[in-house]
Amino acid sequence: MSAIPVLVVAGVGNGTGTGAAVARLFAKKGYRVALISRNPDHPNRLASEINNEGREAAAFIIPDYSYSATLSVFDTISAHKWNSEGPSELRVGVWNAGADAWKGFLDVTEQDIAKSVQVQVIAAFAFSRGAILKFKENPLDERGRRGTLIFTGATASLRGNVRTSTFATGKFGTRALSQSLAKEFGKQNIHVAHVIIDGVIDTTKGPAYQSGEEVDRDNNPDIRLDANSIAANYLNLVEQDRSAWTWELDLRPAHEKW
Amino acid sequence: MSAIPVLVVAGVGNGTGTGAAVARLFAKKGYRVALISRNPDHPNRLASEINNEGREAAAFIIPDYSYSATLSVFDTISAHKWNSEGPSELRVGVWNAGADAWKGFLDVTEQDIAKSVQVQVIAAFAFSRGAILKFKENPLDERGRRGTLIFTGATASLRGNVRTSTFATGKFGTRALSQSLAKEFGKQNIHVAHVIIDGVIDTTKGPAYQSGEEVDRDNNPDIRLDANSIAANYLNLVEQDRSAWTWELDLRPAHEKW
Amino acid sequence: MSAIPVLVVAGVGNGTGTGAAVARLFAKKGYRVALISRNPDHPNRLASEINNEGREAAAFIIPDYSYSATLSVFDTISAHKWNSEGPSELRVGVWNAGADAWKGFLDVTEQDIAKSVQVQVIAAFAFSRGAILKFKENPLDERGRRGTLIFTGATASLRGNVRTSTFATGKFGTRALSQSLAKEFGKQNIHVAHVIIDGVIDTTKGPAYQSGEEVDRDNNPDIRLDANSIAANYLNLVEQDRSAWTWELDLRPAHEKW
Amino acid sequence: MSAIPVLVVAGVGNGTGTGAAVARLFAKKGYRVALISRNPDHPNRLASEINNEGREAAAFIIPDYSYSATLSVFDTISAHKWNSEGPSELRVGVWNAGADAWKGFLDVTEQDIAKSVQVQVIAAFAFSRGAILKFKENPLDERGRRGTLIFTGATASLRGNVRTSTFATGKFGTRALSQSLAKEFGKQNIHVAHVIIDGVIDTTKGPAYQSGEEVDRDNNPDIRLDANSIAANYLNLVEQDRSAWTWELDLRPAHEKW
Repeated sequence: MSAIPVLVVAGVGNGTGTGAAVARLFAKKGYRVALISRNPDHPNRLASEINNEGREAAAFIIPDYSYSATLSVFDTISAHKWNSEGPSELRVGVWNAGADAWKGFLDVTEQDIAKSVQVQVIAAFAFSRGAILKFKENPLDERGRRGTLIFTGATASLRGNVRTSTFATGKFGTRALSQSLAKEFGKQNIHVAHVIIDGVIDTTKGPAYQSGEEVDRDNNPDIRLDANSIAANYLNLVEQDRSAWTWELDLRPAHEKW
Repeated sequence: MSAIPVLVVAGVGNGTGTGAAVARLFAKKGYRVALISRNPDHPNRLASEINNEGREAAAFIIPDYSYSATLSVFDTISAHKWNSEGPSELRVGVWNAGADAWKGFLDVTEQDIAKSVQVQVIAAFAFSRGAILKFKENPLDERGRRGTLIFTGATASLRGNVRTSTFATGKFGTRALSQSLAKEFGKQNIHVAHVIIDGVIDTTKGPAYQSGEEVDRDNNPDIRLDANSIAANYLNLVEQDRSAWTWELDLRPAHEKW
Repeated sequence: MSAIPVLVVAGVGNGTGTGAAVARLFAKKGYRVALISRNPDHPNRLASEINNEGREAAAFIIPDYSYSATLSVFDTISAHKWNSEGPSELRVGVWNAGADAWKGFLDVTEQDIAKSVQVQVIAAFAFSRGAILKFKENPLDERGRRGTLIFTGATASLRGNVRTSTFATGKFGTRALSQSLAKEFGKQNIHVAHVIIDGVIDTTKGPAYQSGEEVDRDNNPDIRLDANSIAANYLNLVEQDRSAWTWELDLRPAHEKW
Repeated sequence: MSAIPVLVVAGVGNGTGTGAAVARLFAKKGYRVALISRNPDHPNRLASEINNEGREAAAFIIPDYSYSATLSVFDTISAHKWNSEGPSELRVGVWNAGADAWKGFLDVTEQDIAKSVQVQVIAAFAFSRGAILKFKENPLDERGRRGTLIFTGATASLRGNVRTSTFATGKFGTRALSQSLAKEFGKQNIHVAHVIIDGVIDTTKGPAYQSGEEVDRDNNPDIRLDANSIAANYLNLVEQDRSAWTWELDLRPAHEKW
């Protein structure tokens, strides 16, 4: 009997952003969905929503994004008893954690930096390690891959800007990590990708909101990134044939000024 | 009665590369396929192949990639009588022409430069104009777009190298054009994308072959770009929701060293 | 007797921009200065100005930036009888030609493209060939180089934008050329560099002026690029030790928003 | 009486690399030189060497690159009694710390990451803060600047690679920091620059050495970065007119393959 694929996603926010949309879409595609979060409320609600629709999801709450907590949750996930029968294989990891506050550089405190680094670097490394170690145990699937690790990037992955010193430092860093991993583990049929989200998602969290920009609320897909559309692109990455893998792509609304 | 979408692809090589694979895939998806080429043999054979499978394709042979020939063929395509009934709408343009010979800079002749510029710049502008003018006449489709223009790039789109002075000059230039167009016409719901093909496609033409590198012939998708896999990604671009459009993505085999 | 170094600069505009400032500075440093231009007035006036200060300059007027005219002027320069005694060696080439008008893409004519390509690609290749062939005849100087070729870039060398389709296409292309040359001829101790000018120079020509932006005229160096400051950086490039050569640097005023 | 400029440099290695060469050059140019290091031996030896030549240098040993130690050393430096008379002004900061070991990703330990982050991110932020706060107190100098902050980057600042996951993560991060600072503080006449060192410096430390590549020892400046040549470029950055500041430049030997 063939194993059921598991998606692990870290960073599900308030349930309206990229992480949650990815969870919903992959659940519909037959994945068991493991939601990693520090805050129990949102992921528990999201897991219930998904389970109520006859799919499978579970929340894995970690006390913080420490290295050990972020890494060890992968074993917890592996040991999890899912509702349905049948063995699991971790096949997709989505690293979606880590939005920082935007501040002028002289307002950035030691704690701001530590917090940013904790999530954007240390936990990103731990998450990558957890996912890759599991992927390495997998047989090749029918598309010739053992697993896919996707990092959510931002405009700040490519450009440092006024008020984004910590955010951009972390985002540049994650991009470097993803590129190193793509080069090292491609040869082992593990696909690592980096998605640059360039625009405003309609959630009540996230950098755009924090920046104080006025966010258009009228649901106009010409100017607003729909988290479900982002999720569709994550699925495309997972379904790419091993002959033509993408490391990096950008996503923005049709009318975005860039 | 709703119009049937047309794909125009320029540069179909010997029928084994990206352009031909895109033509075959879009034909299967219900597109009428217009093949632009200077050489009649390959596109005529490809058109026959597609028509014999009950789909629709036609070759449009131009004498050269002059501005006027490249631009005016769009009117010829618009006026074409397809086998099946029903009106057409040009919805997708794929610019896939323009591989140069690789040479040391001092071996590059005035003619080499003129030839490279003719295809990679002048014809690329004419092709873009032809496609965009037609797209502007289209109503929004169900995904909120009027049309999609895709440029095939290469590693040389991002890095000039020894022996690639003309090729990289053209490829950087096309990338600039694609970015300018993406920014200008996104607001008019026309999607412009640029795909960086980083690796060896198994065709007997193209820069990889010309570079003298030994090309692996054993059909191993870990190390070889499959033109059909590339085509699948072009289709993904066309199917992206207007809320999340990609300007640029890279494609390479899992085991590629980069 | 040791040879006197010659600077060749193409593109001296109206005498207030980068090309003219480079000419003046290198003349002061003891270079014989060859000014290539299509328009005789400005370079003749500039040559007179430099000669009147007891230095050496001469204008070399070419009918157009055709490949042959741009290439053959290097032999004319080599054969030139300078005012002072002593043999010459072409040591520095500065390619500074090629500002395009900014236009919406659909307003770009076939002629606009041809003109842009003629200067930005074809003539840039010819100029590079002319300079490099002369450099190859030179002995190593005391810093271990045979010659330096500098290309003037712009913000549009890195980003295509609305209304810059031809300008950015040419500028991306020149950047590719410069990188290819840097990699190929570094090994022959020929230094090729690319300078990204990001901001407004106070001249009455150039893209900034053409873009219709209001240019601050009050001579405030916090917000305005001084052509003499740019020239000082070109001299730095020429004086770099072969152990640490720069291919690319950017230049912008302290207060520039970028 | 006019204040004497102070250079602060963090990361002086074994006295043969970039940091030490910058210290020597700026001392010759009349700067008081403050050497920040964790290891007392090298900087004390370097300070003695500089003082023995009749210039001024002092070592400031910090127990570790913690945020507080890295930041507070700036006050220690401000309070330092230099040998000669006269007030000081901190005018130049050079951040040169932070080479990591190169390792396959699965060999990277939690401690490796923490160490890398400590120096490359947390201490880089503290150093930047310390320098910028001092710069803000300075009057404009004759070139219209209050101070210059230079970050030493590497090839890994632009490309993640196999075996460089921690190093590239930190280096990408520092690059982002430098760009954010350049944009924010340019408007306050503080110049922030980032120098990409692409090649092998002949020191017994540093990434190139650690990578196991065979390093050519024969002192050939065609193939080896001379730390003194690098330092000359740092001085050029400090002497740039505010009308034309560089954020980023690359440096590599003439014959480097890249």
